[in-house]
Amino acid sequence: MSAIAVADLLGLVASGELLAFERMASDARLAPDLRRRAALSEMAAAEIANYRRLADRLSALGVSPEDAMAPYVEALQAYHDSTEPRDWAEVVAKAYVGDAITDDFIREIADALEDPDRALVLDVLHDSRYADFAAAEIRLAVTDDPRVAGRLSMWARRLVGEALSQAGRVAAERATLTALIARDGRVDVSGLFGRLTTAHTARMAAAGLNN
Amino acid sequence: MSAIAVADLLGLVASGELLAFERMASDARLAPDLRRRAALSEMAAAEIANYRRLADRLSALGVSPEDAMAPYVEALQAYHDSTEPRDWAEVVAKAYVGDAITDDFIREIADALEDPDRALVLDVLHDSRYADFAAAEIRLAVTDDPRVAGRLSMWARRLVGEALSQAGRVAAERATLTALIARDGRVDVSGLFGRLTTAHTARMAAAGLNN
Repeated sequence: MSAIAVADLLGLVASGELLAFERMASDARLAPDLRRRAALSEMAAAEIANYRRLADRLSALGVSPEDAMAPYVEALQAYHDSTEPRDWAEVVAKAYVGDAITDDFIREIADALEDPDRALVLDVLHDSRYADFAAAEIRLAVTDDPRVAGRLSMWARRLVGEALSQAGRVAAERATLTALIARDGRVDVSGLFGRLTTAHTARMAAAGLNN
Repeated sequence: MSAIAVADLLGLVASGELLAFERMASDARLAPDLRRRAALSEMAAAEIANYRRLADRLSALGVSPEDAMAPYVEALQAYHDSTEPRDWAEVVAKAYVGDAITDDFIREIADALEDPDRALVLDVLHDSRYADFAAAEIRLAVTDDPRVAGRLSMWARRLVGEALSQAGRVAAERATLTALIARDGRVDVSGLFGRLTTAHTARMAAAGLNN
């Protein structure tokens, strides 16, 4: 893969980390208590540490991190703007769904890279204790009020819909990403989206929600 | 100093870190470009790393970090709510002024503690490269438009005024803090505030602003 294509993929992951950081950090204000508020802030901070590693790698490749991230910021911003959580249950569900789909997507990207970039990208996968925290919070919210399950299931569907819609828009504009999702010489956007949503459905069930 | 008083002071520093993290992280959206946006996010993330160290120390002392922070959250929140930056110049000026006054205050607190808490608290002082970044951004904003100097000088006075007003309110309610600012057996709130504002004035001049 060309250095430009590598920078393109690292820029995508880095910009995802940077914007996820900002949103999770600002969502922390919706936490019902200080313990949970701090927990979400620490989840957010993990994203920025990963951002720094990717930015350093881009600089080492002679690419400015800002240039590499620029093509993705608008779509990521549009995703976050259109999925502003209204309460704590929506905050943790968004973190849970978003982190997991991001990780699935990162694994697809890693397949297209060679080391050391492949190892770096796999290394920024989310720490599973954060997913455990978010899933436990979702189950707690559902236990407290069973009607929350329906609302969060709908919210999760909206998150996935908005994410795939923005992803499709970016993929249509970026040849590197289109090449990434090509399998056996065929561009298989629906195959990729199918893999991502199948894994998502299984996770929803694990958190006590339905798809 | 009693373990309760130590927990009280560590709780103050920890809550300051946690709330500063959230506000700086959410202020990052006002950055004019991705480089600066990432730089502010990284400044914010440094606060959460410090928060974690203080929270771990509180847990080791047998105190829940949430309980230790609870008395300060309202005042800190009130400070941040009343000083919402409207643009990037106000964001960096707030980070510059806030970090520096916090550091001065932390040094005062450290004087009242014994090791290992004293060393821990001194260790969470802000990294000077972040202050250098903020000061450089302020000077740049003033160079671009000299009228900004007057506006930012007024903004900085408001920040200090709001901070001291909230600090005074907390001090009046917390015996430990009142004891902390006692010198030679006398409670010297105006002496402490005097030391903090004198240092602040010198820093304003260093960043090209006036007091």
